[in-house]
Parts: sequence; structure tokens; C-alpha cells
Amino acid sequence: MTERLILSLDAMGGDQAPHVVVAGIELALRLHPGVHYLLYGDEAQLGPLLECSRDVAAVCTVRHTAERVSNDDKPSQVLRQGRKTSMWLAIQAVKDGEASGVISAGNTGALMAMAKILLRTLPGISRPAIATVLPSRQGDVVMLDLGANSDCDAQNLVEFAIMGEVFARTVLGLARPSIGLLNIGAEDMKGNEAVRTASALLRASPLPIRFHGFVEGDDIGAGTVDVVVTDGFTGNVALKTVEGTARLYAGFLRDAFHGSFLARLGYFLARPALTRVKNRTDPRRYNGAMFLGLNGVCVKSHGGTDDVGFANAIGVAASLVTRGFNDRIKDEFATLQFGAPSSAAVASHR
Amino acid sequence: MTERLILSLDAMGGDQAPHVVVAGIELALRLHPGVHYLLYGDEAQLGPLLECSRDVAAVCTVRHTAERVSNDDKPSQVLRQGRKTSMWLAIQAVKDGEASGVISAGNTGALMAMAKILLRTLPGISRPAIATVLPSRQGDVVMLDLGANSDCDAQNLVEFAIMGEVFARTVLGLARPSIGLLNIGAEDMKGNEAVRTASALLRASPLPIRFHGFVEGDDIGAGTVDVVVTDGFTGNVALKTVEGTARLYAGFLRDAFHGSFLARLGYFLARPALTRVKNRTDPRRYNGAMFLGLNGVCVKSHGGTDDVGFANAIGVAASLVTRGFNDRIKDEFATLQFGAPSSAAVASHR
Repeated sequence: MTERLILSLDAMGGDQAPHVVVAGIELALRLHPGVHYLLYGDEAQLGPLLECSRDVAAVCTVRHTAERVSNDDKPSQVLRQGRKTSMWLAIQAVKDGEASGVISAGNTGALMAMAKILLRTLPGISRPAIATVLPSRQGDVVMLDLGANSDCDAQNLVEFAIMGEVFARTVLGLARPSIGLLNIGAEDMKGNEAVRTASALLRASPLPIRFHGFVEGDDIGAGTVDVVVTDGFTGNVALKTVEGTARLYAGFLRDAFHGSFLARLGYFLARPALTRVKNRTDPRRYNGAMFLGLNGVCVKSHGGTDDVGFANAIGVAASLVTRGFNDRIKDEFATLQFGAPSSAAVASHR
Repeated sequence: MTERLILSLDAMGGDQAPHVVVAGIELALRLHPGVHYLLYGDEAQLGPLLECSRDVAAVCTVRHTAERVSNDDKPSQVLRQGRKTSMWLAIQAVKDGEASGVISAGNTGALMAMAKILLRTLPGISRPAIATVLPSRQGDVVMLDLGANSDCDAQNLVEFAIMGEVFARTVLGLARPSIGLLNIGAEDMKGNEAVRTASALLRASPLPIRFHGFVEGDDIGAGTVDVVVTDGFTGNVALKTVEGTARLYAGFLRDAFHGSFLARLGYFLARPALTRVKNRTDPRRYNGAMFLGLNGVCVKSHGGTDDVGFANAIGVAASLVTRGFNDRIKDEFATLQFGAPSSAAVASHR
């Protein structure tokens, strides 16, 4: 690794690639300066885009490949036949130490499969998880897993809890983040075997984590805890239910404001305030799902995002690298394994 | 059973019982006329309330009991010691044929446990499910299970799908409701074993149901299908996530409209339109979770609801009874078991 932050990009991943990728870098020049990019993709498409923006070209190295992963490709298929794709090569750059993190807006299943094979999980972690940040009444909330693992046992959930806690501490900068296990009631007897056992394990953990106990679906938006831990099936459904409900209410409001002349005038007067609500909950602000638990930073951008969203995903990857997220994770799991926390882990809990 | 519709009420269930129960009946006099109520609860508390409203007293028969189920009681405990509670006796009235349906705003776990023991499941159904109606862009959507069964196998999900379909047809009045299985992606390989097998079973079903395939969390609000089928763990989290997200956005909007003089003025002008949005998504309009699959109608009102919400729960129970929901369910499962649909089931699918 070099002193300068280098990120590798799957320039061909996403609905509007490579255009949005290059436009995202352009925005990131200002928002997240000092990053150099390895752009994996089709030179014939990338060349003209970079010619239009000398500033972007100055921070990019194009690495040509004609192959790409499509959204219909199955993970098993790309693992066998996709080793020359822009996605594979971009991850390979992290494995080889050429880049500190990789970002792709491509096929999520393929990205996770390739990242697991190439980067492997960190010591002590059996399965990586997908995490994201969501808005709540109390500020940002981290939720994981969001779909990497449909079936999870108690040990998986405990690992997710530790990773989520470290993320909230190192990247969100919270001193003592609280952790909640997503369940269908607050009482001990509620839920399935996995959440009940995970709760017992977290209460008995030698790590000084602040375990709140069980939380329910409405606690996500209420911001009852800083980190919401769940299996990938429930987490994926919950995340998409948040998105769908937000769209439903936005639609109802749009209908209402178009309903009469007075309502339209009311909207006009309240517009600056309503725009703040829109910005506060803008999905692009929360773009960039993190694959946590791997030997290397890997961020998945939404396939349909625009330049603002992609620039945000770049920011997420840059934060994970510069805050040393993976080193902290290693410290935590070393503590669990050997009993005595390393000095770094102790310091970070002060 | 008599010609007149009789409902039994657990008058002591809920945060503000029995006051809200009596106030709910008063509202229901106009909204759902022609119902007689068996009120199970403390005569000393109910008497004075009924004296204040002769109209309500005229449609009620009070059946005294001093015992009630509290919110902290465990299901196992009330099954042993709760046979004189207002909740138990109200369900018993349905079992004995004195009432056609029961409504309680009390402890959900206790209500489900008692209802299962007293009413038993309908022939062909292994487990009852909790269902509710939610708003969507395309009108009302039914979702089940919402927490009766944390772990579900494929057969359970298929039974829920059939019950949800019959509900949408008989109670919501949809001619050919579409059914979706909640999953974390639309592709066949996605999700866990239970949803994949349930999908195959539904595609091969001899019943003429309109199975859409898998849906995701955002399809609930989009109204992609009329019936969303899922296990009780995921369904409970999804339902509460809908509620929590709605509250989060309502809170953000409140903040925005209080933010400046212009925003307040804008709110004032748009208020009639915004009130329509509020009414359209009013949780009280959707109060009344149905326990489907039992030999008798059982509706759970939210514990914290007011008279409007309780009156709505009465309406839900009345609809299930008058539309003959349970008879239709029996027809469907008889078709499955014996191959040939009964004339009622065929007619209902035209």
C-alpha cells in the first residue's frame, strides 16, 4: 500500500456505467480530494469520457478489459468464467495491494461472491455482512446484514454486532454506540433460536460493547439504538420496506400538493423547508452498502444511482480506509480469541 | 348461532379499557349497525359507562368477571390460570356458538394461545396466521403472517397464501387478487429454502390462484400484489418498519413545517390536502389484526388505540363474519384435499 489513497473502480458496473462512474469521480474531486482511481473497464468508452474532463483524467489510471458482469449473471457462473471482468479485476487490485478499496455498482451477488473468494474473511469472522447507514429521529443508524446471508446462526449475529459496533465507533465517530438485535418483541422469550442465543452471547461478551437488547422494526426509524443487527433475509426486507414506505408517503404528499390551488400555493411557500426534508432523507446520501468482514474494503453502489450517489459511495470507501476500520475489526476479534484486548482496542473504547 | 350478528368483546383488554371499548361500540352503532355485543369484564366498571349511553347499553349484555389478562402475563401462564379472565370467556363465547366473533385489545400472545386452544384450527390448516391490511399506491394490501409463527416451513406459507387470497376476495371484494411471497430478490434462486419451496408449490397449486412470484420489501408500499405472504418473524419486522418509517417522515415533516413563518403559512394553506394524506394513512383505519385459520373469527385491536380504532376492529370482525370468510376457507382446503372444488369455491373464482 502507498501513502496516497488508491481506490479501484468497476467502471462498467451499474445501469449507466461508465458515464455515472466518471461523473461520480468528478464530484468526488471536491468532496473527497486526494484519491487516485484505478478504472477497470472498456478503454474505448472510458477514453472519450476522460478526455472531456482533464481533472478526472489526472487522478485516474485506466486498466482496459472488454469483459463485464451483467445483472443477469449468476454468482456461480461469474466465479468460473468472469476472471477477466472489470469487477473481478477491480477486486483483484485490492487483493494485490494496489488499491485500498474497491467500489462497484454492478451485480450484488456476483460482487459478494468474488469478494469472498478473492479477499477472504478477516480472522475470526465466518461470514461477511452487508451494512448501510439509514436516517432516524436520533441521527444515523447502521443496519446489517442486508442480504449477504439468508440464514444466520447466533454466532453470525454476534460477529455482525461486533462489526457494526466498530463501524459506528470508527467511521460514524460515536463514543459508545448501542447495539440492538432486531426481533418481534422486547421480551427474552420472543423470536427464534438464533436471536435468543445471540442475545445471551452478547450479554456475556468480554468486549465492552453496549448491548441494548432486542429492538423491533419501528426502532430503526426511531433511532432507539445506533446499530441494528439482523440476519440477511430480515435485514434486506426491512431496508426495502423503509425505502418503499418512504416512496409511498412521498407519493401521497405529491398527490396532496397537486390537489388544489391552495395546496400548490402552500407547497410553494413551504418548499425550502420541504427541500430540507428531501435532502435529509435523500437515498443518494445513503448510497454505498459496505461489505464488512473482508480483508479489504469493498463498497456496493446502488445500480441505478447518479453521480451524487456514486460520489457518496466513494466517500464511504474512503472513510472505511482512512479510519482504519479493518484494523480495528482485527483488534476486536483478537481480543475475543486471546482474551486480552490489544492496546488499540482498549484505547478505542475509552 | 342466531340471525343477528353477535360479537363478544374482551372489555378489559387494552391500555384504556374498558372506556375505549364502550366508546368504540358507540361509534360502531352508526358505522356497523345491527350488532349485539357480549361484554366480558368488570360490572362495577362497565355499569357506570353503560349508564351514560343508553344506545350502547341497548346493544350490550354484560357478563361479569373480575379477572383479566395483563400485558405482562406469559401465554403459558394464562393458559393454566386464566380461564376466568375476560379474554378467555370472550373467546369461549365464540366456541360455544353464542357469538360469531371475538375482539380483544389485550395481550397478543395470550390471545393467540387461548384462541388456538379454544377455537382450534380449521380443517387442513396447521397454523393460524395474523393478517392486516396496509395502505399502498394501488389501494389496500393484505399482509400475513405478522408474528403468530416465528419459524415457518413452505407448507405454512402456502396455507397463509390461500387464506390471504380468500380474504382479499371475500372481504376486500377483489375479483382475482394477486399473491406475492416476500423475499430478498425476484429470481428463483433467492432466499431461503422455505420461500423457494413455497413458490414451487404455489405455482403447481390446483387452486386457480394468481401467484405473482417473489416480491421485495418495497413492493408492500408499491402495491405490486394484493396479498403479501411471509413468515411471522419477517412480517412482524416489516409491519413495524412500515409504522416506524411513517412516523419518521411525519416527524421530519412536522419539523419542516415548524421551521419558518413561510413554512407555517404554507402548512396552513395546504392543511386540507395534508389532512387527507393523514386520514388516508391513519393507523386507526387499519386497526384490527385478524387471526386467520381458526374455527371462529378473532380480531386483535391495537392495545393503545382509541374509539375510532376500536370501532374499526369491530368492523373488521363484522366483515369477516358477514362475508362468510371461514366457510370460504373451508371450501378452499376441501378442494385441495379432495381435488374437486365445491360449487361455492368454483363460483367464488369466476
